[in-house]
Amino acid sequence: MAGIKVTVWNEFLHEKSSAAVRQIYPNGIHEAIAAPLRAAGYEVRTATLAEPTHGLTEDVLDHTDVLLWWGHVAHGEVQDAVVEAVVKRVWQGMGLIVLHSGHFSKVFRRLMGTSCDLKWREAGEHERLWVVNPAHPIATGISETIELPHEEMYGEHFDIPTPDELVFVSWFPGGEVFRSGCTFVRGNGKIFYFRPGHETYPTYHNTAIQQVLQNAVQWARPVEGPNFQRGNVKPLESLHEKNDFVK
Amino acid sequence: MAGIKVTVWNEFLHEKSSAAVRQIYPNGIHEAIAAPLRAAGYEVRTATLAEPTHGLTEDVLDHTDVLLWWGHVAHGEVQDAVVEAVVKRVWQGMGLIVLHSGHFSKVFRRLMGTSCDLKWREAGEHERLWVVNPAHPIATGISETIELPHEEMYGEHFDIPTPDELVFVSWFPGGEVFRSGCTFVRGNGKIFYFRPGHETYPTYHNTAIQQVLQNAVQWARPVEGPNFQRGNVKPLESLHEKNDFVK
Amino acid sequence: MAGIKVTVWNEFLHEKSSAAVRQIYPNGIHEAIAAPLRAAGYEVRTATLAEPTHGLTEDVLDHTDVLLWWGHVAHGEVQDAVVEAVVKRVWQGMGLIVLHSGHFSKVFRRLMGTSCDLKWREAGEHERLWVVNPAHPIATGISETIELPHEEMYGEHFDIPTPDELVFVSWFPGGEVFRSGCTFVRGNGKIFYFRPGHETYPTYHNTAIQQVLQNAVQWARPVEGPNFQRGNVKPLESLHEKNDFVK
Amino acid sequence: MAGIKVTVWNEFLHEKSSAAVRQIYPNGIHEAIAAPLRAAGYEVRTATLAEPTHGLTEDVLDHTDVLLWWGHVAHGEVQDAVVEAVVKRVWQGMGLIVLHSGHFSKVFRRLMGTSCDLKWREAGEHERLWVVNPAHPIATGISETIELPHEEMYGEHFDIPTPDELVFVSWFPGGEVFRSGCTFVRGNGKIFYFRPGHETYPTYHNTAIQQVLQNAVQWARPVEGPNFQRGNVKPLESLHEKNDFVK
Repeated sequence: MAGIKVTVWNEFLHEKSSAAVRQIYPNGIHEAIAAPLRAAGYEVRTATLAEPTHGLTEDVLDHTDVLLWWGHVAHGEVQDAVVEAVVKRVWQGMGLIVLHSGHFSKVFRRLMGTSCDLKWREAGEHERLWVVNPAHPIATGISETIELPHEEMYGEHFDIPTPDELVFVSWFPGGEVFRSGCTFVRGNGKIFYFRPGHETYPTYHNTAIQQVLQNAVQWARPVEGPNFQRGNVKPLESLHEKNDFVK
Repeated sequence: MAGIKVTVWNEFLHEKSSAAVRQIYPNGIHEAIAAPLRAAGYEVRTATLAEPTHGLTEDVLDHTDVLLWWGHVAHGEVQDAVVEAVVKRVWQGMGLIVLHSGHFSKVFRRLMGTSCDLKWREAGEHERLWVVNPAHPIATGISETIELPHEEMYGEHFDIPTPDELVFVSWFPGGEVFRSGCTFVRGNGKIFYFRPGHETYPTYHNTAIQQVLQNAVQWARPVEGPNFQRGNVKPLESLHEKNDFVK
Repeated sequence: MAGIKVTVWNEFLHEKSSAAVRQIYPNGIHEAIAAPLRAAGYEVRTATLAEPTHGLTEDVLDHTDVLLWWGHVAHGEVQDAVVEAVVKRVWQGMGLIVLHSGHFSKVFRRLMGTSCDLKWREAGEHERLWVVNPAHPIATGISETIELPHEEMYGEHFDIPTPDELVFVSWFPGGEVFRSGCTFVRGNGKIFYFRPGHETYPTYHNTAIQQVLQNAVQWARPVEGPNFQRGNVKPLESLHEKNDFVK
Repeated sequence: MAGIKVTVWNEFLHEKSSAAVRQIYPNGIHEAIAAPLRAAGYEVRTATLAEPTHGLTEDVLDHTDVLLWWGHVAHGEVQDAVVEAVVKRVWQGMGLIVLHSGHFSKVFRRLMGTSCDLKWREAGEHERLWVVNPAHPIATGISETIELPHEEMYGEHFDIPTPDELVFVSWFPGGEVFRSGCTFVRGNGKIFYFRPGHETYPTYHNTAIQQVLQNAVQWARPVEGPNFQRGNVKPLESLHEKNDFVK
């Protein structure tokens, strides 16, 4: 984990406007997410909407292996230029972990090509996440369920492309299910969407949730894969000499 | 649908030993499954465990485009030769629809390569199946949920290979979810596993369930695809003449 | 096929500017694609860039089950409003078949969320498409290869999301391979990308290519699936009465 | 890599019967595979067909995180009990890397549920492997192609289930393509099939091939995921108290 650079982005608005949220996350959701990642040995910085360039300058992105994204009420205020810069970095290999209401963020919708719409209900329901892919590294150290006594409900149909991998499916007592842990690849970058994390519940203080986020960061880190040639290319040279059987 | 030949295979034991099951399915589960398929225009025959070769002779298989399989208490009594004959036909293109407790059938386990184990509970619980792939033809004519007032519960983790496509996810009030509509390809054959159908509930009389089975038969029918060459082959002839730019 | 409404969209520029292209496609690529679909019984109209709204008015889209898209040199001239209207229709269930250089169209890139970049070479090379998914309906009636004596080469890495299904892989003599038949789902709509079709070769006169396009239209037609509720929803009613075992 | 236990299994027959093979692999293919893995820090042992229990005793399997499998002419001589023991370990989480002609091994066919048949030609052709999934950890440190001057050809259609992930596609000058790097999950275990490695060519001395095998071992190592409950289970306790809004 040493040497992996993580940036946690948070809208950071609910914590300012709501005493109830502030009581749960006194330093902001971003710090609650960042602290256990730091403790696990990652190099973690944070960035928020109100900062210039939302804290996501070229320099910050240059030093980000994995970006986590929490947003809710101000998706429309995120500048398109920042969205495109983030998308470009994902294409180049930066990992992206989209959290909870980030499903409606410009960045996620841009990368998915769908509406990313869903059902929801704020009723403090019990959420039970079932592991459906026990061989996946994101399930490392997790029991067969994660139990969250109170969460916002998200229900199917979740309008996303078919996930490359489905790691968690959530159950809610009101009758809904949700594909709550999904992976995608876009360009050289890996993306993980993870459902839980409503601002009015202490979800990010749950150690199993923290473990999933650590696993996801580890999984989403860039691979030093090929630099592809693009555009007009020449054929393989000396094909005849090498393969003179083809006659 | 005209011209598509369907065989419905049923163990046909519960109906003989249990008056309660017989009351729901007086002619056997196979006839309850067959009747609406016949009404939809398919050519449907049935076959059962007690028949010679379990009713699945070479001649019957020769005239089967799609095979449905319901079994529960007598998986071990199915002859290995019949299992291999069915598997070979699937490889050649025959569609296979595996129902409910058929998850533990020799045929399904042989084709999956996994234990196909799961959780279960017989408590007459409400089952709610959610469509998670609305573009799939198996979802044709289905609402966003199918509601079954009483069913046996099956819960994750369902030990199957990653499905090629996930069409339904089930919710149960006791806290479980289940990938209840899954597709797989083996050789030239398409396979659909569909969870509901416990013998003590009138599931196969439910019109939405009947619609799913019709859709699944339509989807699983053989494709007149390529006959592949196997084994030792020669290279593409006249490559040089056709592609004289490669020099 | 009766009753399925198809619209073939073509940029229709090469045919006007190049006598060589005009000789191969005297009525335009769109008519070469449309004719065999009409002969197969589909209701086919065409639309081109130069028409008002590029021929893709709301009324035309209202009467389109499957849209085929051929574009190359004028992707940038397609109005964003038309792109968004097409994307919205795909989300609602309209099938979309993207052809050859359409990989760089605004519509395809918008739906994929990637650059859709690739390698290319115009050298009249032999293209050999291998069927790698013989159970897929798009392979109906196709031999194990399709042989195109002269085509433009496209090579990997093709920067697309992981396809839901891979139907064809192309081989080129200069040393390249390409995932040339790929399916995707976006919302309720099915998408098929099919590689061949350079304007200077008679690819759309090839009967195997015509068969693939017919198969793809059949496969991509809308499913009458669920109308999903979105947004704030209530829990399942009467859960307790229905499931009084949960105590 | 420290602490990851690897077992390399080799049939070890060609090396004894053929001087040409022995010249390339004087200590056997298993040692050629094992040496660079040892150098990378893995704990590596080897096992061969002629040993009691083919060298794969319960004790050896107890101390194997990832098993590599090379076999060719003697698949039928592998005892069924050993096959089942290996399959069971994969289900429990052991990684499995199947090499080249191991596609026809009992272990691989048992886990795939298909014939695993393919085309082949021994003509010393150039093999070019293209990376098609640059975000995958198995592509770490690999260029956009791996070039093998001389290899046996394997061609499509490769009769395997749809791979979970496709990492490499091979090109051969005689006109074939092949899905040459494929991943699968079975139970809690991860499987990687990797095509190159004919005994008469020095493929395992190629540093890019060695890098792929190191990456694959790293990827396939067991995840400490959930221990699932199976069979008859009770519902979630205290559902009503926790979720008293459901009334």
